[in-house]
Amino acid sequence: MTLPVIPDSMRAVEIKKDGDQPLLVTGKVPIPEITTGEVLVRIRGAGVNRPDLMQVAGMYPPPPGASEIPGLELAGEIVACAPDVTDWNVGDRVCALVTGGGYAQYAAVPAAQCLPIPRGLGLIEAAGLPETFFTVWHNVFDKAALQNGETFLVHGGTSGIGTTAIQLAKAFGARVIATAGTDEKCQACCDLGADIAINYKTQDFVEEVKSATDGKGADVILDMVAGDYVSRNFKAAAMEGRIVIIAFLNGPKAETNFTPLLLKRLTLMGSTLRAQPIANKQAIANQLRTKVWPLIDTGKIRPVIFKTLPLAEAQAAHDILRGGAHVGKVVLEVP
Amino acid sequence: MTLPVIPDSMRAVEIKKDGDQPLLVTGKVPIPEITTGEVLVRIRGAGVNRPDLMQVAGMYPPPPGASEIPGLELAGEIVACAPDVTDWNVGDRVCALVTGGGYAQYAAVPAAQCLPIPRGLGLIEAAGLPETFFTVWHNVFDKAALQNGETFLVHGGTSGIGTTAIQLAKAFGARVIATAGTDEKCQACCDLGADIAINYKTQDFVEEVKSATDGKGADVILDMVAGDYVSRNFKAAAMEGRIVIIAFLNGPKAETNFTPLLLKRLTLMGSTLRAQPIANKQAIANQLRTKVWPLIDTGKIRPVIFKTLPLAEAQAAHDILRGGAHVGKVVLEVP
Repeated sequence: MTLPVIPDSMRAVEIKKDGDQPLLVTGKVPIPEITTGEVLVRIRGAGVNRPDLMQVAGMYPPPPGASEIPGLELAGEIVACAPDVTDWNVGDRVCALVTGGGYAQYAAVPAAQCLPIPRGLGLIEAAGLPETFFTVWHNVFDKAALQNGETFLVHGGTSGIGTTAIQLAKAFGARVIATAGTDEKCQACCDLGADIAINYKTQDFVEEVKSATDGKGADVILDMVAGDYVSRNFKAAAMEGRIVIIAFLNGPKAETNFTPLLLKRLTLMGSTLRAQPIANKQAIANQLRTKVWPLIDTGKIRPVIFKTLPLAEAQAAHDILRGGAHVGKVVLEVP
Repeated sequence: MTLPVIPDSMRAVEIKKDGDQPLLVTGKVPIPEITTGEVLVRIRGAGVNRPDLMQVAGMYPPPPGASEIPGLELAGEIVACAPDVTDWNVGDRVCALVTGGGYAQYAAVPAAQCLPIPRGLGLIEAAGLPETFFTVWHNVFDKAALQNGETFLVHGGTSGIGTTAIQLAKAFGARVIATAGTDEKCQACCDLGADIAINYKTQDFVEEVKSATDGKGADVILDMVAGDYVSRNFKAAAMEGRIVIIAFLNGPKAETNFTPLLLKRLTLMGSTLRAQPIANKQAIANQLRTKVWPLIDTGKIRPVIFKTLPLAEAQAAHDILRGGAHVGKVVLEVP
């Protein structure tokens, strides 16, 4: 087998300042070097995620040791492996979760965070899988332990997280309620399998969840809104409900009434994925590979790609996410 | 064996109104009737707990089916058993958790919520065990899963909950930090085994916990304060820390910053014991019997009794708890 030729430099997106305004600019940077346990991936697709916007805004700095280049997920071909990597080979096509560096032609990736490309998916579609599938699996199934037959509420049903959460919860036997900001988005949630979609701009989600569950409430809630939603989630939760906060779209602070936490014996959890050790991410990857990837292989779960843009248009991709009119993922195509 | 003679009526404490002021008054009421799965206990001691004060104030009504008589724990002799009760016999001395009815001469008690009297303890001492031992075990060991070698922070270290939590956490290998409101109370916490006691009136418990743990924080926090303590507990918690709120001494509402919940991947839980089904309480009782009662049998853990008063002085007993100068439990002696 001929080994791939790896150039000295690559195109990558960098965060520059235009006066006070941060700007995404494509430049030339050295190829990353791999270390123990890593593979070098020639990237073909890079998913765009809301934390990338926060990083550009200076509010979500890369953890120690991570690339300064944005991008938390990617797909491509392995072009080099560290000597201790035994489970992947040069030439393998993978998608992967990374702590940064996705918006580029090459990335050094922990082998433990790579997954195979599900059957029937291209590298662009696969590039949009890792961030939301790792996040939803970890929070909804590992942490909140959603069970077959339980009621699951997800806010932001048409976001990347939302479209993944609706499909995963449905595939594992939950009754799914999603919130979204327009009637069209509510329809999109139902098209993806949600049993009930609530337009949070015209309806009170607490009342709607209660009336949809005979007053019982939701067993598991996945929330990226926070702020006043914390108290409202407490009200919308069932006895012994589990609520996981994964982002603060309404800010991290709010006047909160904890009475239901005691009376309903609720559990409130939070997490971010990026800063977690590789071993945690490997454990999630193993679960995804055995329990979820077969569902994508057979087409039962489909990644929802809203738009694909060239790497050089990363700024426009961020503007789409900021605009909030998308349903599903935005992915960068890497030349 | 001669069966005990059970009278038609008994002395019990009732909540009366003196104008607007609720008052505890001893009166004559019928003996409670036992039903399936219950035993009738001739009470000799009844523990006094903070929820009893809330019940008297009208803020903690008995759950459906519970006695209107206050009192959540008791000890005495079994004088009758429902036909389906096989694990206890007339004449057995037990202590028990109840949903109400402890401040009386007799109570109908689910057999599943009875425990034997630990070796060397009288009925008065044993009457002060169930409420705090069930509560601490359930919250600190079941829910928060405190592990050997972890750091445990308990607020209100000299309360009934506090004195129990310090001893239990210490017995199971945790490093224990307690907060209390005077230097004398801090000394009492240390005498019970706390490694560090923090006077919350003169010291900032967040800073003290951090400096005592090399900045790491507490792995498990048992809190009955809530209010602004929720945000402060988030700051005092270690990565992947678990916090359980069991009461709202500072009120159930507060402006709360949830940032550490995500960044430290914290879990915030709440619970009340009283409203839980008998099966849950039975599961706790089984754990206490096998894991904790042997430690009381051998004197490694000792109930801390601050004062014993006659049943007729229930009002004075409540005043002691309200005053907050006590260390450990107040128990009523039942004639």
